[in-house]
Order: sequence, then C-alpha cells, then structure tokens
Amino acid sequence: MKQTLALGIAVMLAGTLQLPAQDLKLPAPDTKGGKPLMECMALRKSSRSFSSKKLSPQIMANIFYAADGITRKDGRKTVPTARNAQNQMIYAATADGSWIYEPKTNTLKKLGSKDIRTVCGKQGFHADAPLVLVYVAEPEKCGKTPEQQQNYAANHAGYSSQNVYLYAASEGLATVVCAMVDRDALAKALNLPANQQIMYSQPIGYPGK
Amino acid sequence: MKQTLALGIAVMLAGTLQLPAQDLKLPAPDTKGGKPLMECMALRKSSRSFSSKKLSPQIMANIFYAADGITRKDGRKTVPTARNAQNQMIYAATADGSWIYEPKTNTLKKLGSKDIRTVCGKQGFHADAPLVLVYVAEPEKCGKTPEQQQNYAANHAGYSSQNVYLYAASEGLATVVCAMVDRDALAKALNLPANQQIMYSQPIGYPGK
Repeated sequence: MKQTLALGIAVMLAGTLQLPAQDLKLPAPDTKGGKPLMECMALRKSSRSFSSKKLSPQIMANIFYAADGITRKDGRKTVPTARNAQNQMIYAATADGSWIYEPKTNTLKKLGSKDIRTVCGKQGFHADAPLVLVYVAEPEKCGKTPEQQQNYAANHAGYSSQNVYLYAASEGLATVVCAMVDRDALAKALNLPANQQIMYSQPIGYPGK
Repeated sequence: MKQTLALGIAVMLAGTLQLPAQDLKLPAPDTKGGKPLMECMALRKSSRSFSSKKLSPQIMANIFYAADGITRKDGRKTVPTARNAQNQMIYAATADGSWIYEPKTNTLKKLGSKDIRTVCGKQGFHADAPLVLVYVAEPEKCGKTPEQQQNYAANHAGYSSQNVYLYAASEGLATVVCAMVDRDALAKALNLPANQQIMYSQPIGYPGK
C-alpha cells in the first residue's frame, strides 16, 4: 500500500516535470480561415494604441503560427529563413510573465512570472498590449560574414512580422513593429544566452480608443 | 493648315514624352480576393523550378501591389518601412527588359530592353522565371548608424518578399528569395545610382516540371 502510494506520487511528479503546469499548450492554429489575402494586404497598417483586453488562446495560437508555425513534416514554416537555418526564435511577454514559443509542440514555455512588457520597447503602449512578441536571432547559425548574419537576421524578422501584420489585419487587431528597444535590458529580463540577439518587438492586441 | 498639322504633331510628341510607349501601365490590383490568409500561410513555400509561361498583366499588378502597393491616401503601403521612410524600390527583370515599379502610377517604367534575368541571381533558375523582382534600398534615408541602415533595409525586403510569397501561395505560383546575387554586376545592369543598394532577388512564375 505504501509502495503503491509512493509510486503514484512519483508518477505524478514525473508528469509535472515533463510539462510544468505554468507552460501553456496552445490550441491547434487555424490553417484554413481568415479574410482573403488581398483584403488583408489592403487593410495592413501600423497601429500604436492598444486595449488591454486579453487575446483568446485560439488567437494567440494563430499569432504564433503566423510568426513561426510549422507547416510541413520536414519542419519548414510559414516563413522562410536563409539556407533553412531556422535561426530565429519568438519570445513573448504578457501580464502573466515571459515566454518562448516552441513551434514543434505548439507550446508557450514559461520563462518567468514577472510582467516585462514595458522592457520590450521604449514606447509606452507596450504596457497596454496584452501580448508583445520579441524577435530574437542566433546570427552565427546563418551567414558567413558578420554583415550577412545581421542582414539575414533582420530579414527573417521582416518575414515573420509581416505575417503577424496581415493576421492582425484579418482579425481586426492592432500591431506595430518597434526597433526602439533597450536590447541590453530586455536580454537581461529574458535571460538570453550570449549568442542570441534581439531584433525587434511587436506588440499586438485589440485596438485602443 | 500647316500650323494645325504642326500643332497636332507637337501634341502627339508631348503625349509620347509624358508616357513613353514602352512603359507598362498595370491594371488596378485585386484588393479583395485571393485564398483565405491562414491557408496562404499554410501553403507558403520556397520553390526553385519555374515554367517560362508568361504572367498576365493582372497577376503582375497583384505581385507589385503585394511587394510595394499603395493602400492609403497618405501613401502608406501594403508593407511598412521604419519611420515610414519608404526607402525601398522594386526593380524587375523580364524577357522584355528591365523595369522599376512606380507605386503612385501603378506603372512599370522601362529602364532597358536587354534581358538581364540571369544577372539577377547566381542560380540558373533565374533564366526560366518570367519575372524576377529585385529589392533595392536607399539605406541612407533611414536609420542613424550604418548598422541600423543595413538592418532596416534587410528588414524591409523581408516584409515585401513575404507578401509576395503569400501571393504566390494564393495564386499557385512558385517563388523563392535569393541572396546569392552578384550585386556589382546587377547594379551595373540596372544602372543604379551610388546611393542605391541591392538586397535580394525574388524570381516568380508558374511552377516548372
């Protein structure tokens, strides 16, 4: 009896270790819907005013799919990377903490419980948006020269953030890409390893008043 | 009578000068249609095999609209640029010559009659694609430091080429962004001014066999 109980507790703990309760498994993204593409392009715009209204898990899933979602069995994605290096990661900040998106499991892995949205960009509206994406590159994984590496990293962020712009247009959300980021402060807040480099942030949410 | 004839000839010449016959006025782009956005994202891929089948004027118009089309009265576009500097131009190469897209008039302005598609990229498939886009930046117009300027230029090309990727997915076209470009040779072939910098090329056309 004691052994059974101990085993039960051990199994429960193992389960907990495999998927910590604070990680957020996202629902399957919508891969069929949305407004017609050309209408989304016509509606695309940069908006800098956000409501604090939360985004549903489905909308969150669609946003991360747009930015970095896997579409094929070989791991290729909604966005290309030079030489298929896939050397870009999507970090995120919400009121509940900081996260990294894991495309393979469609999960937001929790990095910390502190609200670091105001560290994600120098403009005040970062505090209002319910979700701030942070595009992070590992430049050394792609490109031969430092110039090439920087070039590709900035290019990759463009692919992903354009998809997010179009999704925002389709869904009636507000978003804008921001380069005014205190990268040292944000790297510290996200506890980034030395080989990872912050490119841009992109707050997204319902339009503010 | 002689005066009337002379006036008529003068008017004809003036008309010719205003819009040289070789320039190509594109039809109005489709701003409503296409496949649903999320389906386009799911279908997006890089393809490196092209049929030489020509693209219709309507499809050409939609491609340039995706890459750099004006959507609003203030001149803002389907893609953002940092600080709204709009410091990116879309050049193009076809079997009939080289061109620059003028978003305000929705016109392809002809630069020369030589087929320079093979100069647009080192991979042989550039010769097959009926249209090769060339993303060109004026880095000095945006960003304070040389690093920022290069960063934004590469980022802008990402926005535009992602839109073209999605349009290709919607329309069943093949496309791929290429960084392997002999930039000196292509700058010479396009007769680029010194302040303009070639970022990437992007051939597009019907899929090859």
